[in-house]
Amino acid sequence: MFFHRKELQFHAKPDAPDAVFAKQLQEVIGGQYGEMTVAMQYLFQGWSTRGHERYRDLLMDTGTQELGHIEMLATMVARLLEGAPAYEQEKAAADPVVGAILGGMNPQHAIVHGLGASPKDSNGVPWNAGYIIASGNLLADFRSNVNAESQGRLQVARLYSMTDDKGVKEMLSFLLARDTMHQNQWLAAIKEMEAKEGVIVPSTVPPEWEASEYSHIHFTNSETSTSSQLSWLHETAPDGHNFTVEKPEPMGEAPILKPAPPEAHDTLPEDKLK
Amino acid sequence: MFFHRKELQFHAKPDAPDAVFAKQLQEVIGGQYGEMTVAMQYLFQGWSTRGHERYRDLLMDTGTQELGHIEMLATMVARLLEGAPAYEQEKAAADPVVGAILGGMNPQHAIVHGLGASPKDSNGVPWNAGYIIASGNLLADFRSNVNAESQGRLQVARLYSMTDDKGVKEMLSFLLARDTMHQNQWLAAIKEMEAKEGVIVPSTVPPEWEASEYSHIHFTNSETSTSSQLSWLHETAPDGHNFTVEKPEPMGEAPILKPAPPEAHDTLPEDKLK
Amino acid sequence: MFFHRKELQFHAKPDAPDAVFAKQLQEVIGGQYGEMTVAMQYLFQGWSTRGHERYRDLLMDTGTQELGHIEMLATMVARLLEGAPAYEQEKAAADPVVGAILGGMNPQHAIVHGLGASPKDSNGVPWNAGYIIASGNLLADFRSNVNAESQGRLQVARLYSMTDDKGVKEMLSFLLARDTMHQNQWLAAIKEMEAKEGVIVPSTVPPEWEASEYSHIHFTNSETSTSSQLSWLHETAPDGHNFTVEKPEPMGEAPILKPAPPEAHDTLPEDKLK
Amino acid sequence: MFFHRKELQFHAKPDAPDAVFAKQLQEVIGGQYGEMTVAMQYLFQGWSTRGHERYRDLLMDTGTQELGHIEMLATMVARLLEGAPAYEQEKAAADPVVGAILGGMNPQHAIVHGLGASPKDSNGVPWNAGYIIASGNLLADFRSNVNAESQGRLQVARLYSMTDDKGVKEMLSFLLARDTMHQNQWLAAIKEMEAKEGVIVPSTVPPEWEASEYSHIHFTNSETSTSSQLSWLHETAPDGHNFTVEKPEPMGEAPILKPAPPEAHDTLPEDKLK
Amino acid sequence: MFFHRKELQFHAKPDAPDAVFAKQLQEVIGGQYGEMTVAMQYLFQGWSTRGHERYRDLLMDTGTQELGHIEMLATMVARLLEGAPAYEQEKAAADPVVGAILGGMNPQHAIVHGLGASPKDSNGVPWNAGYIIASGNLLADFRSNVNAESQGRLQVARLYSMTDDKGVKEMLSFLLARDTMHQNQWLAAIKEMEAKEGVIVPSTVPPEWEASEYSHIHFTNSETSTSSQLSWLHETAPDGHNFTVEKPEPMGEAPILKPAPPEAHDTLPEDKLK
Amino acid sequence: MFFHRKELQFHAKPDAPDAVFAKQLQEVIGGQYGEMTVAMQYLFQGWSTRGHERYRDLLMDTGTQELGHIEMLATMVARLLEGAPAYEQEKAAADPVVGAILGGMNPQHAIVHGLGASPKDSNGVPWNAGYIIASGNLLADFRSNVNAESQGRLQVARLYSMTDDKGVKEMLSFLLARDTMHQNQWLAAIKEMEAKEGVIVPSTVPPEWEASEYSHIHFTNSETSTSSQLSWLHETAPDGHNFTVEKPEPMGEAPILKPAPPEAHDTLPEDKLK
Repeated sequence: MFFHRKELQFHAKPDAPDAVFAKQLQEVIGGQYGEMTVAMQYLFQGWSTRGHERYRDLLMDTGTQELGHIEMLATMVARLLEGAPAYEQEKAAADPVVGAILGGMNPQHAIVHGLGASPKDSNGVPWNAGYIIASGNLLADFRSNVNAESQGRLQVARLYSMTDDKGVKEMLSFLLARDTMHQNQWLAAIKEMEAKEGVIVPSTVPPEWEASEYSHIHFTNSETSTSSQLSWLHETAPDGHNFTVEKPEPMGEAPILKPAPPEAHDTLPEDKLK
Repeated sequence: MFFHRKELQFHAKPDAPDAVFAKQLQEVIGGQYGEMTVAMQYLFQGWSTRGHERYRDLLMDTGTQELGHIEMLATMVARLLEGAPAYEQEKAAADPVVGAILGGMNPQHAIVHGLGASPKDSNGVPWNAGYIIASGNLLADFRSNVNAESQGRLQVARLYSMTDDKGVKEMLSFLLARDTMHQNQWLAAIKEMEAKEGVIVPSTVPPEWEASEYSHIHFTNSETSTSSQLSWLHETAPDGHNFTVEKPEPMGEAPILKPAPPEAHDTLPEDKLK
Repeated sequence: MFFHRKELQFHAKPDAPDAVFAKQLQEVIGGQYGEMTVAMQYLFQGWSTRGHERYRDLLMDTGTQELGHIEMLATMVARLLEGAPAYEQEKAAADPVVGAILGGMNPQHAIVHGLGASPKDSNGVPWNAGYIIASGNLLADFRSNVNAESQGRLQVARLYSMTDDKGVKEMLSFLLARDTMHQNQWLAAIKEMEAKEGVIVPSTVPPEWEASEYSHIHFTNSETSTSSQLSWLHETAPDGHNFTVEKPEPMGEAPILKPAPPEAHDTLPEDKLK
Repeated sequence: MFFHRKELQFHAKPDAPDAVFAKQLQEVIGGQYGEMTVAMQYLFQGWSTRGHERYRDLLMDTGTQELGHIEMLATMVARLLEGAPAYEQEKAAADPVVGAILGGMNPQHAIVHGLGASPKDSNGVPWNAGYIIASGNLLADFRSNVNAESQGRLQVARLYSMTDDKGVKEMLSFLLARDTMHQNQWLAAIKEMEAKEGVIVPSTVPPEWEASEYSHIHFTNSETSTSSQLSWLHETAPDGHNFTVEKPEPMGEAPILKPAPPEAHDTLPEDKLK
Repeated sequence: MFFHRKELQFHAKPDAPDAVFAKQLQEVIGGQYGEMTVAMQYLFQGWSTRGHERYRDLLMDTGTQELGHIEMLATMVARLLEGAPAYEQEKAAADPVVGAILGGMNPQHAIVHGLGASPKDSNGVPWNAGYIIASGNLLADFRSNVNAESQGRLQVARLYSMTDDKGVKEMLSFLLARDTMHQNQWLAAIKEMEAKEGVIVPSTVPPEWEASEYSHIHFTNSETSTSSQLSWLHETAPDGHNFTVEKPEPMGEAPILKPAPPEAHDTLPEDKLK
Repeated sequence: MFFHRKELQFHAKPDAPDAVFAKQLQEVIGGQYGEMTVAMQYLFQGWSTRGHERYRDLLMDTGTQELGHIEMLATMVARLLEGAPAYEQEKAAADPVVGAILGGMNPQHAIVHGLGASPKDSNGVPWNAGYIIASGNLLADFRSNVNAESQGRLQVARLYSMTDDKGVKEMLSFLLARDTMHQNQWLAAIKEMEAKEGVIVPSTVPPEWEASEYSHIHFTNSETSTSSQLSWLHETAPDGHNFTVEKPEPMGEAPILKPAPPEAHDTLPEDKLK
């Protein structure tokens, strides 16, 4: 069950309006690796966790916190739009600076949201749940989580260079820090799980299920590839076996499919056509 | 530039038709973590790689190989549908086994594809590029890759239990092995990059950008959380600092937004309304 | 800022596994009118509210509560899948009851989520933010909200008939009640706003902007329509004017578009083609 | 069955080209609350109406009319693009006004549509049927309809401020008027249905299905919420009962999920891991 | 401007309920090649046609007619659901035939639509405007149209085999006929346009824009391809030139991208990393 | 099985950075008719081909080649972004030319991809598999293919006018040529298949399935349509029969649907409501 406090987790006040940056900042609200993604991913993972109370709690802790990050960013976007020339289209022809702002802002901030934040990315594409995963396997999901926090912090770092606004930068510096924490956290959790289970997910596959003769070959499908010079290919693999490198060759046959039944109305086979 | 050989990388021949399993197998073709995802993700990462020739080549090697995995799976689906009662709807009322097959198969296998594979997931949702990432940061992307291979191998392992067909199982055993290799590969690459750059992505953020006083605090937003008992919270964090645990409190203020301009036609502020 | 308590707002325990109902129940988690929709809609509306503190708070109260409803439903789905024959595909051929369950369940519950809930609808389509609105105009948005609670309660009522499970029904009876409350709440809020602003949204449009001679005509575009017999068409309209009924006639001209410039490579006009 | 007349319902002729406004106007063609939405929503509702001939006819009347509104807007967009510098990219560097236009226009108007309208919103996101509802319950759907007409008129009002073009404004003034009519119409229909059925949708839920002790409580999940000061909370609720206000407390237990079966390859429970 | 007549263009009455077929029939309402696609595609093409009055009219004629086909199919789906055991989930365990029906029907027909049609495909994926094209080039679009009618008729033919219901088959026989007409119509229009413009779209590309030395080579990227045995490769090409066949070789260089600027926070180049 | 060579099929080097054109060029990578579409469409068609070895090979040849076109375009986009002022937002206010570039570029090129290509269209909408078809019927699919190559070449021709960059134009001239080849190829293949099967797809529908009395009537649903003056309507139809023209009249009845069962909670019929 959830509760809310009206105060923000951290400050979210820009020094000045900036409609174009408001559009760009949407990426970390409703983009593939925005705060909606981490919030929903951690909550759904938490709700599905079986037999690991502390990790369930960690997921709920973090997911709940991320909800507050969406809130900070939505507040920031709403304020970046306050005082921006969002409806002054007619000035654009006369004043190219205004023109560039209006051309560069998200039109839905003006038309759909009345100067509020949008649950979409920096191009206006709606957030969708195809971005998130809750698999029931903690190690797999923690790897997804450290990826999400890595991509997320990378995007925040890029946005940091794209503005001079001190208020915005202050909030971004907080988000950079929290993403550092969350990368640390998932990395530590991964290390613990790998120590218990081994590094290959899922660890529960019986050996006889796997064609293990193919489990450590690096195939160089790019013909003049230099990848075989990567030093780790000549060291022990993370699961303790040795890598080998091979030029790939087909092991199967060229597939010949049977004709479809008449009800499929597929093209008749060549010898039936004429 | 790409080339094709008509032989499959590995066998893809079921022992018998199974239209319901054909539907389920679609998950690893066109689902969030299917072969279309890894193929396209690795290729786009490869095409964007700057200054790392051997990793560019590794990405192209692996992405090119994954194209051949889509091919194996598409062939398998086409064969699982050969001989299945896909168009015998009228038998369903009389024969509940046929009814269950027809109810459980993907109707588009019959209606849209004429007994061929679909570029969609096990529920018929089209694959989309929102599943993939190519960020320009190799460590971030390798973390995405090890996640994709973990989720992918997990799904293949589950599918392995859902069929008795020896031919299908043989192909799945090969895919399990390749996903083992690819997890090993990205884990080794991550280890190398972390050794060179440090574990926090991106490594290039100047320290003064980050509010580092918040970079190692675990906030327990779930009020009776037991997460603070996780042992690694009491050890050195992956980036070498120490974790702390805190009950979270707001550091910002309750946000008050200014009224919108009249052109927004937002609701007038309370004191203007009456 | 958000907090979580580990206890559920209400009980969410089925009496028995039911994988098919788990699939159906997904509709009210991740469907167009599921709990993800109302939670995210109310939160984004709250974050964008300007000049109406109490309504901002009401939106945050309700949105925060809805997060807890996603949690109850996700828990219920996870439990409905406990003990279900999700991976026993091979039994399906022999036992048509099992076959019907496996054919009727969501394959991603088994393959992707490992018996956990999914952020998708009852057909497996991912939730997306195109379902929600935060417009900055409270009356407009409250109308969206009462619609969402009406569709939501309707769907819960239908699901109530589709199961005999007492535990499930108990949870649904709670959701029915909360949707009653929320319909009451938005209806009361609408009544207040309409009393202050008038019934036509937005109330701030200057009269001279509107071609008011067309503001109360009912056009019968369906030629033998009986709609003009609706009694309220012969009473005062909600905004105080009178309705009229007219057979529609075009008031514009048949449009003739000019040729495109050569750079468009549109088809050349007829007289240029030969 | 449908028929078409070549004349437009109303004039749709701009005074001058404006490629940026053409992009913005797309919102009310193919956006969440554009004319494609109302047209398709009313038609699907009409086609599903059972036992209410006059409302079926009203829905078909209005849906058919809305098809003509898509037509007017598509014509307007095509004309706003006539004469715009859509393909003069090279001038952009020299002339910042042209640069702002080319940066601010929808590139697909030039590349995909050859200066014609697009079935997408103002950010180029394709219209999709997840925007519409036809539930079989008229009161629920009329509430959706009054919401759609409210959001739609709000968006048209905002667009009205964003242009100086007299021809565009004339068409928008007509759309404002029709949206006034349609708000009136659905409000009147709602009033009639509420009088017959009561205000809570669906009206057909037997009282014993509902945990009615929770049907009128306002829970203040936002901890310092001022929402309880809303005057209507202290008056009779729309359905005739009285509201109460409560600080929310969990009524369920903290959920403990059972371990998954081995076939799920979920993480093993903590006590099985070591 | 559009008008509606309440009578259907053709009969749409099944002999008996069939919830599973209702799901399957959705493909030709809201699928990639369903009637929503052809209706919207022809209308948007018509609205964008410049300088070809009779083709504009043909497109409006046909698009308007297709609206009536959606209507027929929506009516058919609503009737196929009348009397089906949509809400009798509890009977499913006891009666495997009912179980198969409930497992095989679209759950949204019961939960979302109250036994009405859905604007989605046979898997419940919402129709979206990414399925349609209006390019401004008539020959290009007529080719899209003949494709749509070909795929559409193919799907109807497959559905014809999947039911024994005489009423359904009667309606499908009408749709087969109309798709024959529309294939004929677009083929004839294509022939006329090709005669005037030549066969390569767009015909307006100046010869010096094209690297014409590559305009007639068939590259055999599949290494043991037998495609060069296709007889037409040894005849005159449709545009009057001769085909040649070549084993493909790269003509470009292996791409080396420059390092990104520091603000991108991409991985530093190899020589900068250590 | 697939292989890769590191050299590009053709040169992909711009003369100068151009972030706005990089955005526009995305259309032919990840748009509805971009190279991802043709690559995936041909490969899926090839994998499903039954009984036509040479056409299977042709599809694999061409699909494999198109993968190399994605590669060329992705390389071009990455280079167009090299040196562009992507992160210099703060200069935009001072310099309207920079402002126009930043307003007009794809923000995700900077924030998400670190100056690499994106698998999305020119508006940032992710590519999805709803764009492609593999039907099992070669004639139907070849028609889809010639449409895709026509739309694709049209888009490339438009892009050609939108840049002055010689390096870009050189690459586009190659793509124009390859699209010429592929139009030729599919047109020739269509001609061969039509000669063998007849022009109406699918050719395998028994005559008694079709209501052939409606197979050649052109209905003029647009009331003052001039379409009947199209000359080919007065000549023999492509399938050898004669067209006729008729003013359309309904042949069905106005549909009356039966009331829904109580479990649907649809609105009660009018006579039950009061």
